[in-house]
Amino acid sequence: MTISIEQKLVELGIELPPASNPAAKYANYVIANGFLYVSGKGPQGTPKGKLGQAFTTPEGYQFARSAGIEVLAVVKDALGTLDRVKQVVKIQGFINADPAFEEHAKVLDGCSELMVEVFGDKGLHARSVFGAMSVRANLPIIIDSIFQIEE
Amino acid sequence: MTISIEQKLVELGIELPPASNPAAKYANYVIANGFLYVSGKGPQGTPKGKLGQAFTTPEGYQFARSAGIEVLAVVKDALGTLDRVKQVVKIQGFINADPAFEEHAKVLDGCSELMVEVFGDKGLHARSVFGAMSVRANLPIIIDSIFQIEE
Amino acid sequence: MTISIEQKLVELGIELPPASNPAAKYANYVIANGFLYVSGKGPQGTPKGKLGQAFTTPEGYQFARSAGIEVLAVVKDALGTLDRVKQVVKIQGFINADPAFEEHAKVLDGCSELMVEVFGDKGLHARSVFGAMSVRANLPIIIDSIFQIEE
Repeated sequence: MTISIEQKLVELGIELPPASNPAAKYANYVIANGFLYVSGKGPQGTPKGKLGQAFTTPEGYQFARSAGIEVLAVVKDALGTLDRVKQVVKIQGFINADPAFEEHAKVLDGCSELMVEVFGDKGLHARSVFGAMSVRANLPIIIDSIFQIEE
Repeated sequence: MTISIEQKLVELGIELPPASNPAAKYANYVIANGFLYVSGKGPQGTPKGKLGQAFTTPEGYQFARSAGIEVLAVVKDALGTLDRVKQVVKIQGFINADPAFEEHAKVLDGCSELMVEVFGDKGLHARSVFGAMSVRANLPIIIDSIFQIEE
Repeated sequence: MTISIEQKLVELGIELPPASNPAAKYANYVIANGFLYVSGKGPQGTPKGKLGQAFTTPEGYQFARSAGIEVLAVVKDALGTLDRVKQVVKIQGFINADPAFEEHAKVLDGCSELMVEVFGDKGLHARSVFGAMSVRANLPIIIDSIFQIEE
């Protein structure tokens, strides 16, 4: 008997918010050839500031997790249920960071570990991360993502 | 009777330039498994400078639109006709920006709105944007893009 | 008679290292729908510093080539043999750069030319590049990549 991803979320105490709206003439997601492309999402509450300046690495980890939850809200909105996710394919993290900041990987772990908690092996993804010079609305992190889905 | 995208361009007063050449040992585009990946393109006339320093947000909007037209020139070169585009899948905007710049979304709208004007609902795409520390040749913006195509 | 990519590597004097491990709860690669997504990889020996400050453009070119070899080590680990690569689809270069740096394209050429040396026409890829504010562990460059593969 397999546990649905929805049940898993309950177990983890994660409640998905309604998917946030895109801010302009674009889509929250696009489905094409078995992939779901999700638009860049920031953390809930729209915090403002840079890692290594306004925020510490552990705070960044929590922001990355929060942005990941925002991503999952879009995935649920797109697919009806998270159970249609076959694989988390790719995560890119854009971190609003000081030029001397070096702990980008530890920050993005907040999102990566969320995906594994929620999806198990299907949550293991390729990823990359870098420090951005600046980010829209001075958000501390934006998560860009691609999922493989059941069609 | 549907209007072709080529006719739509005429209506919009958009004339596609010849596709610009890649600057090095890489391709302007790659087609793989129903997707068209386009190399990063900057605005026409190779302007130089950073958003929030040399350029205002409305100027950035026009640069993003111009870079979008450069992208479409490559798409036409790749496919023969823009009518073979099934969906604009993903746009990433790399904005050459001041560390205090926050209006990345408004700048990228110049490209996003172009895609919707040209392709209608097929132009609605997932997207993300961030401020780059620096950009090749000090261009103000580079657009990275993926399209789903008729094969 | 075609030369295998493995033989080609020998001819080029390129010895692939063992694939480096992912640093956290994510995968070195994901295979989905005929694509291989490789996690961001830096150069061998984990050099530290920014282009235009600690390092010159020719040094950056060598780092990009070295990071490309690290990518190929992951591809070989994923596929068993590089002969299963149908096309190098997409390369993104994140360059740890000074705000005044403009030679991102020349740096990324180190990776692009490697791909063409190794794969010939199958190595011609779409690409984009930008200067990052900062990079994990202060690496000078990270290469993010997508390959189309024989299934």
